[in-house]
Amino acid sequence: MSSKTISYANLHRFTRDAFLRVGMSEADSETGADVLATTDAWGVFTHGTKSLAGYLRRLKAGGLRAQGKARIIAGGGGWATVDGDSSLGMVASVFAMQTAIAKARQQGIAYVGVRNSCHFGAAGYYAWLAAREGLIGIAMANDIPSVAAPGSRGAITGSNPLAYAVPAGKRRPMLLDISTATVAGGKVYAAKARGEPIPGHWIIDANGKPTADPSGFPHVGALLPMAGHKGYGLSLLIETLSGILSGAAVTWGVRSWAHDDATLHTLHGAAFLAIDVKCIIPEEEFARKVETLIDEIHNSPRADGVDRLLVPGELEWERHDRAMKEGIPLPADVVENLKAAAELAGLDQPTLKG
Amino acid sequence: MSSKTISYANLHRFTRDAFLRVGMSEADSETGADVLATTDAWGVFTHGTKSLAGYLRRLKAGGLRAQGKARIIAGGGGWATVDGDSSLGMVASVFAMQTAIAKARQQGIAYVGVRNSCHFGAAGYYAWLAAREGLIGIAMANDIPSVAAPGSRGAITGSNPLAYAVPAGKRRPMLLDISTATVAGGKVYAAKARGEPIPGHWIIDANGKPTADPSGFPHVGALLPMAGHKGYGLSLLIETLSGILSGAAVTWGVRSWAHDDATLHTLHGAAFLAIDVKCIIPEEEFARKVETLIDEIHNSPRADGVDRLLVPGELEWERHDRAMKEGIPLPADVVENLKAAAELAGLDQPTLKG
Repeated sequence: MSSKTISYANLHRFTRDAFLRVGMSEADSETGADVLATTDAWGVFTHGTKSLAGYLRRLKAGGLRAQGKARIIAGGGGWATVDGDSSLGMVASVFAMQTAIAKARQQGIAYVGVRNSCHFGAAGYYAWLAAREGLIGIAMANDIPSVAAPGSRGAITGSNPLAYAVPAGKRRPMLLDISTATVAGGKVYAAKARGEPIPGHWIIDANGKPTADPSGFPHVGALLPMAGHKGYGLSLLIETLSGILSGAAVTWGVRSWAHDDATLHTLHGAAFLAIDVKCIIPEEEFARKVETLIDEIHNSPRADGVDRLLVPGELEWERHDRAMKEGIPLPADVVENLKAAAELAGLDQPTLKG
Repeated sequence: MSSKTISYANLHRFTRDAFLRVGMSEADSETGADVLATTDAWGVFTHGTKSLAGYLRRLKAGGLRAQGKARIIAGGGGWATVDGDSSLGMVASVFAMQTAIAKARQQGIAYVGVRNSCHFGAAGYYAWLAAREGLIGIAMANDIPSVAAPGSRGAITGSNPLAYAVPAGKRRPMLLDISTATVAGGKVYAAKARGEPIPGHWIIDANGKPTADPSGFPHVGALLPMAGHKGYGLSLLIETLSGILSGAAVTWGVRSWAHDDATLHTLHGAAFLAIDVKCIIPEEEFARKVETLIDEIHNSPRADGVDRLLVPGELEWERHDRAMKEGIPLPADVVENLKAAAELAGLDQPTLKG
């Protein structure tokens, strides 16, 4: 199978229509489509519409509530706790970050924790929601354990993603979206499917030892944490802010959105922070200094053979701009998943080119 | 030279007296001694009293102001900007975290940025100040560039430390304190001094290529960022929150506290976040869940040959408790630096055993 191109508008419409078909409101369907289509436009295909079929399955089975309504159940000056009501993770998360933005505009900074959420896709989307409005945004979530601790035989924490976005004046926001594992599980699956070995620092085997053999993953062993104890430590902070402080499920209490019984709520947690730059420092001064930092990096000496130095998000924005002009080059696995989504929603397959 | 043991009380008294001798107030001298002696008690000898002589040199030369008075120059509900007035980094930072704690108690969360600070030692100390009082604490700072970006030929960002502490009920707080470089520069110096090669992923050479030869460091090349683009990306968030949003110096605008002209202010920035757990969730529920998480980790299956699984800070707290009973086992390089500090302050050398 080769990759196919789709326009942003078509992918967005198809995704929105699919959500509508399984009973979500117009507004929530738009929100879900915004998140997933933007993620694909950034070229982050592991976290975009590839997962649509999985979400639709849960929405139809009841593990996600199509009419679920995220709401603030507690709050104060600079914080809120949101109950996601097992609505689509994107819907609960956009509501939560918007809540954080509104509160940060009053207090300078805000924290919003979310319980009863689900897989939220690309953390970077929510961080960007803040940056788009002139705030620094930080987003994170917990997930079912898949990553080892130093010395463990199996998984201890989720791959617990962390993203931030920083407004950058005339430039696109700096945007980083990482997992706290050494590598995405998807890369291990891909090597396994090709029958190829993997670098020896990606996963551990059934005995807890690093291995270059992906064949046992994920049934035995686990991913290794990024930078060893550092990534492990950061994943525990993320677990604390998104799982414990929010009142969500923690580690093994979270269910797999993809593999567990689709009639059950997954109980994911998430956390969103927003910092309103202009409360704290003149917006122009902040913008000028971020632009200067970016220029300084771009103009720094490069290693032999390196064409350019990048700031976080730069590649994603370039892909995004190209995708808006030329269409989004969907990889074959995404195309396959969109076919499954079309069947689940009772829709025609979206129009693809190439 | 072998290591020597000193009681916490003696090390604290010596450090306090040294600060008093160069003109710092009683209260500020106590604060500086608290930070540095606690850091040594944790066994983090790279960031404790080893640096005392360097600070004293700057305090005597005027690059640090012995009578400098950190103060809030702007603020709102959940935030403040502190001007450190080029006081000792520990004094400005404790003041800033105390400000963050007080504001978080009102709003649930607070951010405090600091400008005109200096090297603040171990970030973990300030995070712990919050956790000691039942809040989640996060501390970070910028520093002179010493760490590469992916593809750069030289340094782009500082080793920009990040620490957090999470209160853990009946247990000691979880406490992580990391730099965003792959390894501390001190480990490269140590290998260089021994004439030994280093792992190939620690530093780059004059051409920007990874090297196992430490001999050129730090005059050419740079440390590599932890986990490649992930550590680089995190260091830019830290630079943003501690350097740009605070109004401090950024990257090459920061001076070396150890090597630059001791009459000049170093202009470091720092950032402190505090989240008041009990504003957001019942304190007992939070404590119980953190304790459960720690128990779960301790009881998880271990790789062959691994005795125990640790949570962040566990080793440091064990060292701390042992140090309080048996004394702090100062490494030889710290002992040498304390001799230099004694000379600079006109004090007798502290009493050491062993």
